[in-house]
Amino acid sequence: MISNKNNTDLMEKIVSLAKRRGFIFPSSEIYGGFGSGYDYGPLGVELKNNIKKEWWREMIQIHDNIVGLDSSILMNPKVWEASGHLTAGFADFLVECKKCHKRFKGDEIKDKCPECGGSLTSPKKFNLMMKTFAGPVEEESSLVYLRAETTQGIYVNFKNVLNSMRLKIPFGIAQIGKAFRNEINPKNFIYRTREFEQMEMEWFCHPKEAPRYFEFWKEERMKWYQNLGIKKENLRIKEIPKEDLPHYAKQGADLEYKFPFGWGELEAIHNRGDWDLSNHSKHSGQDLGYLDPDTGKKYYPYIVETSAGVDRSVLAFLSEAYSEVKGGRTQTTKSTKEIEILLSLHKRLAPIKVAVLPLVRNKKELTQKAKEIYQDLKRHLRCQYDEVGSIGRRYRRQDEIGTLFAVTVDFETLEKNDVTVRDRDTMKQVRVPIVELLDFIKQKLED
Amino acid sequence: MISNKNNTDLMEKIVSLAKRRGFIFPSSEIYGGFGSGYDYGPLGVELKNNIKKEWWREMIQIHDNIVGLDSSILMNPKVWEASGHLTAGFADFLVECKKCHKRFKGDEIKDKCPECGGSLTSPKKFNLMMKTFAGPVEEESSLVYLRAETTQGIYVNFKNVLNSMRLKIPFGIAQIGKAFRNEINPKNFIYRTREFEQMEMEWFCHPKEAPRYFEFWKEERMKWYQNLGIKKENLRIKEIPKEDLPHYAKQGADLEYKFPFGWGELEAIHNRGDWDLSNHSKHSGQDLGYLDPDTGKKYYPYIVETSAGVDRSVLAFLSEAYSEVKGGRTQTTKSTKEIEILLSLHKRLAPIKVAVLPLVRNKKELTQKAKEIYQDLKRHLRCQYDEVGSIGRRYRRQDEIGTLFAVTVDFETLEKNDVTVRDRDTMKQVRVPIVELLDFIKQKLED
Repeated sequence: MISNKNNTDLMEKIVSLAKRRGFIFPSSEIYGGFGSGYDYGPLGVELKNNIKKEWWREMIQIHDNIVGLDSSILMNPKVWEASGHLTAGFADFLVECKKCHKRFKGDEIKDKCPECGGSLTSPKKFNLMMKTFAGPVEEESSLVYLRAETTQGIYVNFKNVLNSMRLKIPFGIAQIGKAFRNEINPKNFIYRTREFEQMEMEWFCHPKEAPRYFEFWKEERMKWYQNLGIKKENLRIKEIPKEDLPHYAKQGADLEYKFPFGWGELEAIHNRGDWDLSNHSKHSGQDLGYLDPDTGKKYYPYIVETSAGVDRSVLAFLSEAYSEVKGGRTQTTKSTKEIEILLSLHKRLAPIKVAVLPLVRNKKELTQKAKEIYQDLKRHLRCQYDEVGSIGRRYRRQDEIGTLFAVTVDFETLEKNDVTVRDRDTMKQVRVPIVELLDFIKQKLED
Repeated sequence: MISNKNNTDLMEKIVSLAKRRGFIFPSSEIYGGFGSGYDYGPLGVELKNNIKKEWWREMIQIHDNIVGLDSSILMNPKVWEASGHLTAGFADFLVECKKCHKRFKGDEIKDKCPECGGSLTSPKKFNLMMKTFAGPVEEESSLVYLRAETTQGIYVNFKNVLNSMRLKIPFGIAQIGKAFRNEINPKNFIYRTREFEQMEMEWFCHPKEAPRYFEFWKEERMKWYQNLGIKKENLRIKEIPKEDLPHYAKQGADLEYKFPFGWGELEAIHNRGDWDLSNHSKHSGQDLGYLDPDTGKKYYPYIVETSAGVDRSVLAFLSEAYSEVKGGRTQTTKSTKEIEILLSLHKRLAPIKVAVLPLVRNKKELTQKAKEIYQDLKRHLRCQYDEVGSIGRRYRRQDEIGTLFAVTVDFETLEKNDVTVRDRDTMKQVRVPIVELLDFIKQKLED
């Protein structure tokens, strides 16, 4: 097997596979693309949905005392005043060319415009929030922002959630949704884009408990990625030194993954102190303090946040799963120079669980039987039916997209009512009676 | 039981329940709200996710030949030139007050400004697309739009999906996602908002087959709502007369629901002809025609579209499920004047499947046993544990949010290792051994 981690063009290979097999396409491609935008194709949306589902299940269903939320992308602009996004650090320093008026990151270039050679202004702050106008009058009063993070929607709903769900500190609110940042340099495929999706969980706790929960959540999140198939050595926690912390944080750490282009942030964990609730109290005039029913004391809960990127997770899981085998992983590859791709996605993440394949397509008894089995299975599992090409070719096609099991209907099936089930990872084949097939696969998926 | 359909304040009751029990909150409420925005609370997001999951399962998993997609909200602006959104009918006629510069719908007022009495301009077109700026230069060239419908992302990905998934006509592409329209009059709670979510499926077929599929999909979509608990008499199909069709459509119909405020569109079904693929071919210079592998002939497939509103579906399912019982549905209600709310959501849509309740909270043996059962069940099902208040009060609390089963741990449990399972709809209680509890409930959920 070819080791990928030192493979400098691994990124290119993933981008290529992603497009060829329907995971990820460049956005608006027929119009020459659009900035850094990407669209998730039929298999990509399934992979992404499976990741989100696993995160949601872990947070909301398995953990106690965490509830979900889905707040709007467009909010009252006062939210962003209170959060500090419009004023404080949420900006890049840019220089503008006096001649062609293009802007560039101030720390990246000197003196002369790289486009036209014109002279540059001194660096100015450029806010990363994207704006739009709501309502029929295009005035300052109707200026609103596309949220730059989902979490502000959680803070402004703190009291509504607390009261309607009758919660007690400590508890968490989790949310998945789109966010937008006008990045100057979108890069590395779906790693940094202007439109992206977040999975954020805000844990409200007593101030004294925040440092303990900061440690707790770092560990929990590390475990989550590992439980879904990411190797320990490809993950690390980078503690953020005090002097580098953002304005809202008391403690911070990046959970990093070893992407094909190097170590990069997959998720950030912060102890945000009482920054959010106290600031929103001040700006809104509403008291967002918490009255402890046991002690009768009131305080602003501290918040420990876990903020993960959905798109970055997709890229991490794809990178981790991708491998190539030179000279034929399957016995049917004729040339020993041929390279076979295996996408060994975790069983809970694989977009397609089972492929149903008639051994040959020109025997109606086989295709009919295979279609019957497919129709039965697909009510319970994500399945694909494929009859085009040699059986070896079809196995390889399924390996490329990470399909867990290939069910082959052959001539023996017609006599004995059993099928061959091939395991993606071991390539071992066993014969299973058709009546037991669904339970057999379900059991394997749950093991 | 009180009939709701003639109840003029039903809408108010739903809004009130939605806020009180964590389904739907006004957006940015601590800052005085934000236009027509709403946020989905802990139970609302579960209900909404269940609706989306059911739609996705029906479209992608159960139907053959439909695949999913998740395209970006921000796209190349040329997409919206080709679609006609920037030029043709996608606009409202507004008049502007010459004095205060406020704008109003042209067909709603006459002569004088209703705000300040000033005189008005003649009606001008006001486009409904919301715009923003992408990239560091705030110029015309970086002007982009928030998508006004998800479907355009499907058309521009037509070829990528076709090729990567090796599909043959007829096939469908389905997508769920946010869209934005700068509505002048957002109204009726989550029925009409500026930010909303769509579930759209585009069915690509031979032109001759389009009228047949137009009929097919109307029926399929009617069935879907009914299978999830909406009564037939609260649904209707309104055919759109030829002269009222939008510019892109050859045939059109609204699938309407009898909302508390009257009949309203829940979903639109259109035969869009070859409008989309031929226009995107023309504007992009890319050939989006389909080469039939059997006949060797090339043509633009016709598109039959089913376009449903997620938020409208939430409102329809909530309205349908809401009922009140005066004088005590449960035996424990003391006053016969008390009104009990029942939310009889379909079992696949109910946010919480099971509540686990110790009979009383001051017996540690009971609460401990109940917590054990809760911990077991929650790995498989969405559960809630509740020990606060009388058992009758807790039943009513669960009925209000549509919880299907209430599992009560009482003193008999400690002796016989069984529990009481109460059915939300029949209120019948049966005793079930703890070891069989999970299977018992699973079976009920699948029946």
